[in-house]
Amino acid sequence: MQQMTLHTALDKIKGVSAVKLAEIQAQINCQCKPKGSLGRLEEFARRYVAITGQDTVEKKVIFTFAGDHGVVEEGISAFPKEVTPQMVYTFIDGGAGINALARQVGAEVIAVDMGVDHEFKPLSGLMIKKVAPGTANFTRGPAMTRPQAIQCLETGIELAVFCKEAGVTLVGTGDMGIGNTTPSAAIVAAITGLPAGKVTHRGTGINDEMLEHKIAVIEKGLALNQPDANDPVDVLAKVGGFEIGGIAGLVIGCAAVGIPVVVDGFISSAGALIASELHIHVRDYIFAAHKSVEIGHSHALERIKQKPMLDLEMRLGEGTGAALAMGLIEASLSAYRGIKTFDQAGVTKGGHQ
Amino acid sequence: MQQMTLHTALDKIKGVSAVKLAEIQAQINCQCKPKGSLGRLEEFARRYVAITGQDTVEKKVIFTFAGDHGVVEEGISAFPKEVTPQMVYTFIDGGAGINALARQVGAEVIAVDMGVDHEFKPLSGLMIKKVAPGTANFTRGPAMTRPQAIQCLETGIELAVFCKEAGVTLVGTGDMGIGNTTPSAAIVAAITGLPAGKVTHRGTGINDEMLEHKIAVIEKGLALNQPDANDPVDVLAKVGGFEIGGIAGLVIGCAAVGIPVVVDGFISSAGALIASELHIHVRDYIFAAHKSVEIGHSHALERIKQKPMLDLEMRLGEGTGAALAMGLIEASLSAYRGIKTFDQAGVTKGGHQ
Repeated sequence: MQQMTLHTALDKIKGVSAVKLAEIQAQINCQCKPKGSLGRLEEFARRYVAITGQDTVEKKVIFTFAGDHGVVEEGISAFPKEVTPQMVYTFIDGGAGINALARQVGAEVIAVDMGVDHEFKPLSGLMIKKVAPGTANFTRGPAMTRPQAIQCLETGIELAVFCKEAGVTLVGTGDMGIGNTTPSAAIVAAITGLPAGKVTHRGTGINDEMLEHKIAVIEKGLALNQPDANDPVDVLAKVGGFEIGGIAGLVIGCAAVGIPVVVDGFISSAGALIASELHIHVRDYIFAAHKSVEIGHSHALERIKQKPMLDLEMRLGEGTGAALAMGLIEASLSAYRGIKTFDQAGVTKGGHQ
Repeated sequence: MQQMTLHTALDKIKGVSAVKLAEIQAQINCQCKPKGSLGRLEEFARRYVAITGQDTVEKKVIFTFAGDHGVVEEGISAFPKEVTPQMVYTFIDGGAGINALARQVGAEVIAVDMGVDHEFKPLSGLMIKKVAPGTANFTRGPAMTRPQAIQCLETGIELAVFCKEAGVTLVGTGDMGIGNTTPSAAIVAAITGLPAGKVTHRGTGINDEMLEHKIAVIEKGLALNQPDANDPVDVLAKVGGFEIGGIAGLVIGCAAVGIPVVVDGFISSAGALIASELHIHVRDYIFAAHKSVEIGHSHALERIKQKPMLDLEMRLGEGTGAALAMGLIEASLSAYRGIKTFDQAGVTKGGHQ
């Protein structure tokens, strides 16, 4: 796979052409239906077509980035750390939520070991890109070094370049990492300036007492490490995670090579937030899959300026929301391609068109 | 096709078994994911499986009921009445929004002429069930007679029986009828008791002045006809529409024969509201596809006690929202079938399961 530095990738990112978007919308406006009546489906089609220059999805891939978190030793998750590699094996076996939902929309799932505390042998469906076997506990120091943060980002960028070469025209993000709502909340707090209590939620299902403790752990990590909100790489390094960095890099890479990227839920959006703070036009390429139950998610999406496509009260991660959202994007393209114009259909136009 | 009277259909409706629902949820709770983390997808799968006893969708059909409305002569729509048959021909040709979106999910589209002011020749993809060539103008008297209202309902029921015999396991509703947001708003106002101004919106895109006029037209129709809120058939007859009656009948029929029915947007929900007022357990079989832009829609859904699955700011009708929602139901079943249990996957359970 070809290397592309973070610097080069950021240099390549351009905003999606407003002229192209308007041209595509003008075509949609000729279709035999009340103007704008397909609502957000029109937006999905417009953006996908403007970015890719195509009106079909050739290949879809969802990358489920996995990593472990030193902060788990603070007791912030309902699940033990050993579940991270167990779930990676389940992704490879095809028995997890993401496999079932990706199957439904015909997307390939690739698990990426960004930093699981487990030695994987080479396996089909798994990319081993391990930065280290888990981050450090951010209540005692930075989660990772700055070079490690950049390594995560450049790994994600590399995957986007690989997708571009392989003819993938729609990419999805996903995550697996026991404890990873904690660094995600820390990132959102650091970048938005909101207090930890406003962006921290129950993850896989902790009780009130553990939630209070989790908030205190995040507050401690932020106070100790003082991540610089104006330096997203610093935020990633100080309180982030390897899989979150991989997601951030993938999002940057997709913007750089021109692939629409469907960002899953809370953890993915923390990654997308890092990415979109690094370049103003990254957001043009992001499709926010869904609104997670995690309370920090909407704050991240507001900052990215993308509205979630679905709200199904999900909180599984893995890329499950991204898989569903891919189905909606393909539906929007089916409408874009398939609806005849008023003229073609011989339908009389309305008086308020 | 077999006949079933309204009375017989209503007699057959039973609530979906709470025991079955709990058993299915217990199975879902064994899957290797945090409990409840697929949110509403779990609800969709649970209800579909409980109703059908199956975990796959065999055949999907969307019925797009078409009818004309006498009240159009009051100038309440942005489109002229001739568009109703023109769009029916477009459905048959496969060039409308519903065709494009149904294609994406593999659903068949059947247009049903319930009362279009146009003589159709027999055509594949069209069922001619015309009650009359358009309703009467409800500002001058009832939209239809009570026997006509019952004829609409029994036509819808007949289609559900036909689906059951044909092995269809998921049905969708759709509508086409220039002016039909006006009777829909009138139905919602009549049944909920809300003022017309609270449930009336812009339909295909009328301006402020026409909206004010449309509200006045509905108020006039309600005042003149005095539909009895406790007699849903009377409401349908006084201020309804033939296609709305067909939808109501289809929903009743699906509940009677045990097929989950995906109810599209505002017009379909007005039909579903008539249906669910006729029997308390009709709602158990309803999947509310999406939240329409029409302001009366959420009031109808609140009364039916079903939460919309999608909110994509759509307002096209035809069954377009139902097609998208069918995709989500199938995704929920893919998750139901495809996710391994903790034991099967060898994944450690969390402490708060």
